[in-house]
Amino acid sequence: MFNFDYYNPTRIMFGTERIKDLGAQLPEDAKVLITYGGGSAKQFGTIDEVIQSLGKRKYIEFGGIEPNPHYDTLMKAVEIVKAEKIDYLIAVGGGSVIDGTKFIAAAVYFEGDAWETWISNTPLKQVLPIGCVLTLPATGSEMNGTAVISNTALNAKLSHKHPLLFPRFAILDPRKSYTLPTKQMANGVVDAFVHVAEQYLTYPVYGKVQDRYAEGLMLTLIEEGPKALKEPENYDVRAAIMWSATQALNGLIGVGVPQDWASHRIGYYFTIHHGLDHAQTLAILLPAVLDVQRENKRLKLLQYAERVWQITEGSEEERINSAITLTRQFFENMGLPTYLRAYGIPESAIEEAINYLKRFNLLPLGEHKDISVIEARRVLSLSY
Amino acid sequence: MFNFDYYNPTRIMFGTERIKDLGAQLPEDAKVLITYGGGSAKQFGTIDEVIQSLGKRKYIEFGGIEPNPHYDTLMKAVEIVKAEKIDYLIAVGGGSVIDGTKFIAAAVYFEGDAWETWISNTPLKQVLPIGCVLTLPATGSEMNGTAVISNTALNAKLSHKHPLLFPRFAILDPRKSYTLPTKQMANGVVDAFVHVAEQYLTYPVYGKVQDRYAEGLMLTLIEEGPKALKEPENYDVRAAIMWSATQALNGLIGVGVPQDWASHRIGYYFTIHHGLDHAQTLAILLPAVLDVQRENKRLKLLQYAERVWQITEGSEEERINSAITLTRQFFENMGLPTYLRAYGIPESAIEEAINYLKRFNLLPLGEHKDISVIEARRVLSLSY
Repeated sequence: MFNFDYYNPTRIMFGTERIKDLGAQLPEDAKVLITYGGGSAKQFGTIDEVIQSLGKRKYIEFGGIEPNPHYDTLMKAVEIVKAEKIDYLIAVGGGSVIDGTKFIAAAVYFEGDAWETWISNTPLKQVLPIGCVLTLPATGSEMNGTAVISNTALNAKLSHKHPLLFPRFAILDPRKSYTLPTKQMANGVVDAFVHVAEQYLTYPVYGKVQDRYAEGLMLTLIEEGPKALKEPENYDVRAAIMWSATQALNGLIGVGVPQDWASHRIGYYFTIHHGLDHAQTLAILLPAVLDVQRENKRLKLLQYAERVWQITEGSEEERINSAITLTRQFFENMGLPTYLRAYGIPESAIEEAINYLKRFNLLPLGEHKDISVIEARRVLSLSY
Repeated sequence: MFNFDYYNPTRIMFGTERIKDLGAQLPEDAKVLITYGGGSAKQFGTIDEVIQSLGKRKYIEFGGIEPNPHYDTLMKAVEIVKAEKIDYLIAVGGGSVIDGTKFIAAAVYFEGDAWETWISNTPLKQVLPIGCVLTLPATGSEMNGTAVISNTALNAKLSHKHPLLFPRFAILDPRKSYTLPTKQMANGVVDAFVHVAEQYLTYPVYGKVQDRYAEGLMLTLIEEGPKALKEPENYDVRAAIMWSATQALNGLIGVGVPQDWASHRIGYYFTIHHGLDHAQTLAILLPAVLDVQRENKRLKLLQYAERVWQITEGSEEERINSAITLTRQFFENMGLPTYLRAYGIPESAIEEAINYLKRFNLLPLGEHKDISVIEARRVLSLSY
């Protein structure tokens, strides 16, 4: 096992009727910006519940944060925070709203150009405190210090990670996911699954606890994911998925072990340039990355085949092939096609994606940093 | 799943050569009390490493904290802290030293009688900051807010839990466990295993993630425990056990699920009055509690039999019996006898233990609070 640090100070408040406990987490005199996305948080009354819990505290609402939150939108919120002397941010939504709110919390204190400061990975010195009300289990942003922001003007999507970006608290009420469109719920399950895969399907370093945790999350998502689509108001199922998604990317399963993230990095291009959902890019790319990297990942792929998919028969190649096929089938069953052509993407996009990876210096990728242009092209060809 | 809060702000610094990073966690002007136990931390140079990392900071050493740390001993440290204006505590050792240090950190601010304040569970308002250097994987105290203190004058052993009691940081270097006596290492593995069992072997509430995590920790301890005794300097094995023991009682596997703790509470008597190691009491009592509570625990015992011990054949009773027998054999193989008589305890101790449970109002016990005198007596008889 590698040396590691683990630190995660986010307070999780999980279960039904927890929004009423939100106010008690804030200073009495806090002045709050409530951020949200497309409007469903408002439509289904979640914003009202938050406002009620705030009691007499002053607040301003800021809606319209997009999926893959846009820099320009977020900078408008930064101006409001400065003008109105906001001192606490409450994000109501999924990963995009929370990521965007993390950016706002940091950018309020940026000097000079905010985008340049963000992408230069300048260590943050100060951020506004953030609390979350999660409505979409998927990204784990509610319990980690990472935010991914898109700059549409520059066609760029880049992440930033800092301990100051952990939310102070996160309210996870599984019932808040009942009203999600099927597609969003399916995306969330696949997103969480691939987060686990990126931290697990590498090479063994005797991370026994991390491996068992990762396998447990995968098994839970495989068992509960399809149920969540069939029975959208099954509390137990939604609760298991919501907690899995948070655990998938709160740092715990990734401590002391190698990590990959090639599927994520290659996928950014297809979100930015072809409008694919983040989870769709992962459903396409993970099976291909596993296939191309099967030598590097051999031992973990065999362990995955046995412990997650109960495959114990056949040659090593057959077991690995079966595990990759079953992974692909799981994504397809969740309603996410796993090939680029199924989304109407032209084959020319393969070379454009390679150019994107070069332009943002994202290569080489993978846990061994051995996915360069040739290997990335093989991944993309297999994905087509 | 039940509603829950999860909050764990302890920073884990895991791996080799981490004590040199200790100093950076403390204020430059901190005045430190270094607490330790019987002297092995001093003998094997760990205290020296801590002192070196402190640089120019002033420090005082306080050794001699006993297993099941004694109130009287700890109060001597409290006096030193007050007299010398100590403002940071560094605990070097296992659970007893860390638990004792948590008491010191709190008792410095107690008004009136410290023992009365402790056992009255008066909410703490202020404590001194604590850092830990863990040398014995077992109790999880390095990453939780619980401390168990013994008062030998009163023949009492009682625990206190409060968010302020989380250590600020914990340094986990698996090599620090190489010099442990075999018996202590075995105790640590059994202690950690029973911590998991107390949070897992209850009744199902659809805690899918918690179940998988708990099973993963049990599998790891079953696989790695015997290796740790045979190969005391196998870093990977010690690392897997150390991380398992921390995870077993840092709150994570117990969120949103019922908990038992009957084996722990009944066991206190045999530590206080018969000098049994804490882990020995657990090795004796857990199999008996599982046997007596088999109806309440049926579904989880069957799941445990299948997922942890791979028992899939036979009637329900046969599978449950096999799981309990294999649990007992695991403890025996680790060198811990699982019956009271094997430790030379007289049979009269059964009624004395019942009286102890009554005297400290520890009954009823169990996840259903249905272990009263009759059931406790059955457990103790089966344990004899």
